[in-house]
Amino acid sequence: MSLTIYGEQLNSRLLIGTALYPSPDIMKQAILASGSQVVTLSLKRQNPQEQSGQQIWQYIQDIVKQTNGFLLPNTAGCKTAKEVYTLAQMSRELFQTSWLKLEVIGDDYNLQPDPFELLKATDILIKAGFNVLPYCTDDLVLCQRLYDLGCEVIMPWASPIGTGKGLMNPYNLETIRTRLPNATLILDAGIGKPSDACLAMEMGYDGILLNSAVALADDPVLMARAFANSLNSGEQAYRAGIMQPRQTAHPSTPTLDTPFWHQN
Amino acid sequence: MSLTIYGEQLNSRLLIGTALYPSPDIMKQAILASGSQVVTLSLKRQNPQEQSGQQIWQYIQDIVKQTNGFLLPNTAGCKTAKEVYTLAQMSRELFQTSWLKLEVIGDDYNLQPDPFELLKATDILIKAGFNVLPYCTDDLVLCQRLYDLGCEVIMPWASPIGTGKGLMNPYNLETIRTRLPNATLILDAGIGKPSDACLAMEMGYDGILLNSAVALADDPVLMARAFANSLNSGEQAYRAGIMQPRQTAHPSTPTLDTPFWHQN
Amino acid sequence: MSLTIYGEQLNSRLLIGTALYPSPDIMKQAILASGSQVVTLSLKRQNPQEQSGQQIWQYIQDIVKQTNGFLLPNTAGCKTAKEVYTLAQMSRELFQTSWLKLEVIGDDYNLQPDPFELLKATDILIKAGFNVLPYCTDDLVLCQRLYDLGCEVIMPWASPIGTGKGLMNPYNLETIRTRLPNATLILDAGIGKPSDACLAMEMGYDGILLNSAVALADDPVLMARAFANSLNSGEQAYRAGIMQPRQTAHPSTPTLDTPFWHQN
Amino acid sequence: MSLTIYGEQLNSRLLIGTALYPSPDIMKQAILASGSQVVTLSLKRQNPQEQSGQQIWQYIQDIVKQTNGFLLPNTAGCKTAKEVYTLAQMSRELFQTSWLKLEVIGDDYNLQPDPFELLKATDILIKAGFNVLPYCTDDLVLCQRLYDLGCEVIMPWASPIGTGKGLMNPYNLETIRTRLPNATLILDAGIGKPSDACLAMEMGYDGILLNSAVALADDPVLMARAFANSLNSGEQAYRAGIMQPRQTAHPSTPTLDTPFWHQN
Repeated sequence: MSLTIYGEQLNSRLLIGTALYPSPDIMKQAILASGSQVVTLSLKRQNPQEQSGQQIWQYIQDIVKQTNGFLLPNTAGCKTAKEVYTLAQMSRELFQTSWLKLEVIGDDYNLQPDPFELLKATDILIKAGFNVLPYCTDDLVLCQRLYDLGCEVIMPWASPIGTGKGLMNPYNLETIRTRLPNATLILDAGIGKPSDACLAMEMGYDGILLNSAVALADDPVLMARAFANSLNSGEQAYRAGIMQPRQTAHPSTPTLDTPFWHQN
Repeated sequence: MSLTIYGEQLNSRLLIGTALYPSPDIMKQAILASGSQVVTLSLKRQNPQEQSGQQIWQYIQDIVKQTNGFLLPNTAGCKTAKEVYTLAQMSRELFQTSWLKLEVIGDDYNLQPDPFELLKATDILIKAGFNVLPYCTDDLVLCQRLYDLGCEVIMPWASPIGTGKGLMNPYNLETIRTRLPNATLILDAGIGKPSDACLAMEMGYDGILLNSAVALADDPVLMARAFANSLNSGEQAYRAGIMQPRQTAHPSTPTLDTPFWHQN
Repeated sequence: MSLTIYGEQLNSRLLIGTALYPSPDIMKQAILASGSQVVTLSLKRQNPQEQSGQQIWQYIQDIVKQTNGFLLPNTAGCKTAKEVYTLAQMSRELFQTSWLKLEVIGDDYNLQPDPFELLKATDILIKAGFNVLPYCTDDLVLCQRLYDLGCEVIMPWASPIGTGKGLMNPYNLETIRTRLPNATLILDAGIGKPSDACLAMEMGYDGILLNSAVALADDPVLMARAFANSLNSGEQAYRAGIMQPRQTAHPSTPTLDTPFWHQN
Repeated sequence: MSLTIYGEQLNSRLLIGTALYPSPDIMKQAILASGSQVVTLSLKRQNPQEQSGQQIWQYIQDIVKQTNGFLLPNTAGCKTAKEVYTLAQMSRELFQTSWLKLEVIGDDYNLQPDPFELLKATDILIKAGFNVLPYCTDDLVLCQRLYDLGCEVIMPWASPIGTGKGLMNPYNLETIRTRLPNATLILDAGIGKPSDACLAMEMGYDGILLNSAVALADDPVLMARAFANSLNSGEQAYRAGIMQPRQTAHPSTPTLDTPFWHQN
C-alpha cells in the first residue's frame, strides 16, 4: 500500500498542491484530510490578494510537521533549463531538500512541458545531486529518456494543468506503464474528479499529483477525502485483478427451470 | 451517507450479487468485505457444478444475518410478465420479503430488459403489494413510467450484464438523474471496475448493483473492498461539488518574478 | 449503391429535413446539392417569422419534382398514438402518400421517442395501410418489435434531436445492425457533422436522416455536399471491408538494411 | 480545394503509402483510385516474399507519371539523425527530389517518433537543402520547434503506425491546429477508416497520409475511393462551418396546433 519516493516510504499515494484554496486554513484542513505526505510548493509563488507568502509558508510547515511529511518544491513558471537551475539551488538551500518537482513550461496556452528544455534541465540537476520528479507529457520516448538519466519518479500529464479534463490519452499512459515497469509513475496535472484518479491507479500508476480538483471543489476538505478513497480503491483494484471486458452479455445467473430451493 | 430503500436505511450504497464466485466461501468473504447490506439472489439459480443450491442458500442466510442486511430476490431469466408473477409470489412466500429485483429479459444477445413486459410486470407486481426494483435500460421515458407506477427505486443499466464495459451512455444516465431528482437511482449491470462505479456516484446516482466485477476478479475479496472505497469516494465527490472542466490550461500557481519567501 | 424504401429505389442514402434553413431558397439549393430524394416535412409545421407555410410548401414541391423524389411527412410534435392517427390520415389524403415518418415524443427535455406510444401508433398505422418509418431510440427490443409489426425501415436516434452530439452509443447501434440484418436501418437525429454520418455508414447502416447539421451550417449548400460525400464514403468503406484495429504498432514498411534499389 | 506542398499544388489532399498491398497491381489500382498525387516510398524497403523491389519501383514510377504526381521518399526504420542523413542524401541523388518524409523511430513497441533525434535530423536536413515533412507526435512544443526550424509541413500522428486506432487525442490535435495556423498540417499514421480522416479534415487539417487502412482493406481499390470521398467531405465541412453541439434537444420543427397547409 505504501509508496516509495527516492528512498522515503509514504503511507499515501497522493501528492498535493498548495495553491488556489479559498483560504490557508482550508488548504491545511484539506491536505490533512487527504492523508498526503507530500506537499508541493511553488518556488515562484505570489499571492497578490493576501500579500502573505510568509503566512502560507507557516501553514505549509505546520502541515509537513503534522503529517510527518515532505516538502516538494516545484519550478512552476520556469521556461528554460537555466532559469530552473538557479531556482533549484535556492530551493535546496532554503528548504533543505534535494527533491524537486521539475516544471519547464513550453507553451503559454496549454502550459505543457517543453520536452527539450526538460531533458536538459533534468540532466543538469541530476548531476548537481537533485532528486528530480519531472512533470512531462505522455510521450513514451521522453519518459524513457528521463528514466535513463536517473529519474526514479516520472510524472506524465493526464491533460493540461487546471483543465480537469482527466485522462486524455489512456493508450499512451498504459503504454508508458507497460514499457517502464520499474519507474515510479505519478500522474500529474489534469485530474478533475476522483474517478479519473481511480482509473489511473487501476492502470497500475503509483500515485497521483493534483491541486485544482481539490482546491476548486465547493468543499475542498470533503473532496480531499474523496480522492484519498479513490486512490485506495484504484490501487486495490489493480492488485485484485480487474475482469476483462467482454463484447456480449453474459448472465451472472445461468438459469434452468427449477428454482434452486427445489434442488439438492 | 446512508441509502434508503423502501423505508429501510442502509449503511452501504452497494447492492451485490451472489453468482459466479470461485466458491461459496469466497462469496461470503467478498460480500462481507464489500460492506453491502443488500444481497441479490436468483430465484431460478442453478449451479450444475456443485449441485448445491441448498448450500449456497445457507451461506447467503449467514451473510444477511451477519450484515444485519436484506435479501433481494431477482427474476433473472424471466421473459414475460406472467412468468415473473408466478415466481414473485413464490419468492415472497419463501423469503418473507416483498422486495423484488425485477428482470424481464428481452433479448438473448445483450440480455437487455424488455421495456414492454417490464412495465406490464411492474404494474401487476405493485398492485400485488411488491416493492419493485426494476432493472431497466437507460431510456428516460421508461424510467419515468416506472417511477409513475410507484417504483421508488429505478435501476438503469450501465451496459449489458457481464460485459464490464462500464457506462456506455453517460449522457442518458445524466439526463435520467436530472429529470428524476426524487427517484432512488441504482446503476445496475455492466460495471467493470471501481472507476466506473465512482463515475456514476459522481453523477449523483444513489447506489450501484454489481456482481461479475467482484466475482470474476482475481481476488474477489480485495476487489470488494476496492468497490466499497470507490462508492464512498464518488458519493463524497458529488457532495463536495466537482470543479468544472475547462478547455484551456490554468496555472495552479500564478507566478511573478519574486520567490514568495522574499515577500511579506 | 442505391437504397430501397418500401419498394422505391433511390440514388441517395440521405433523407433530409426542411426546417431551420436561413431561407426557403437556401433550403432548396441545399437539398438539391445533397442529392437526397426523400424530403421530410412536418405536418404541424409553423413558421411564425415568415407566416408563409404556403410558400415553403411550394419550394418543397419543386424539390420533389426536380429530384424525381419523394415526400416523407412526419408527425413531429405528436405525443400520443391517437394524435398521430388523426394527423396521419390527413397527411395521406393531402400528400397522396402512405409513407410516414412516425415521431411520438415522450419527453420535452430530450425530445426522445416514447417507446410505448410509438409501438401502439405503429400497430394502428400499419393496419391502416401506412408505410411507417418510425423514429425510435437505440433500444434493440423496441427496434425488434417495430420490425416484427411490419416496419421495413427502422430509424434509431444517434443522439437527441438538434444536439449534433453524434453517435452517443455505438455499441447499441452496432448491436441493432447485427441483430436486424434484414431491416433497412436509417440513423435519425443527433448527427452533427459528416464524420458522424460516415461512421454510421461504416457500421453498415443503410442511410441517414438529418436536418440541423445542414440547415445550421454557415454554408448549408456546401455542407449538404459534404454530407453527400461522407455517406458515399462510409458506404464504400463498409463494402470494402475495414481493417481490424490493433493494439500495438505495425510497421507498414518492414525494413532491412539494404535499400530496395540495391536488391533484385 | 487544392493542397500546396513546398510550392507544388496538388489536386488531392491524400498522401499514400506503397506497402502491404496484396500485389503491386492492386497497389497501382488503389493509388490511382485514391486520386493521390503524393506517393511515399520507403528507402529501406524490403519485400522478402517477392524479392522484387525493382518491380515495385517500376509500378511506383508508372503511378507518379500517370498522376502527374510526386515521389515522397521516407526514412522508415531509421533511429538516429546520423542514419537519416546518409539515407537522405542517397535519396536525393537517386530520386531527384529534395522532398523527404522524415521518420526517426524512438521505440520498437509503438514505433513513435523520437522527438529529440527528429529535431536534430530536421535541423541538419533543412540546412542541407531538403524539404522536410517530419512525422511527429501530437506534442505542440515539438510541432512548434519543427515549424520554427523551417518545416512548412508538419505531420503529427493520429495513433501508432498500423494500429488503425484513429484519433487518440483530439484535444492535442485541435490545439496544434489552433496554435500553428500557418503550418500545413498532415495527419500521419493510425488512421483506420474514412470517418477518422473526415474528422481530422473537419478540424481543419490540410491533409492525410495513410497506408495500412487502404492496403489492408478487403478491397483496397474501393477503400481508396472511400478515403478520397471522406477527405473531400471533411474539407468541405470545415469550410461550410459545422454547427455547435448542444447539450439539450432542439426541435427542428417548432410546432403549433395548426398544420402548415392551413396557414397563409
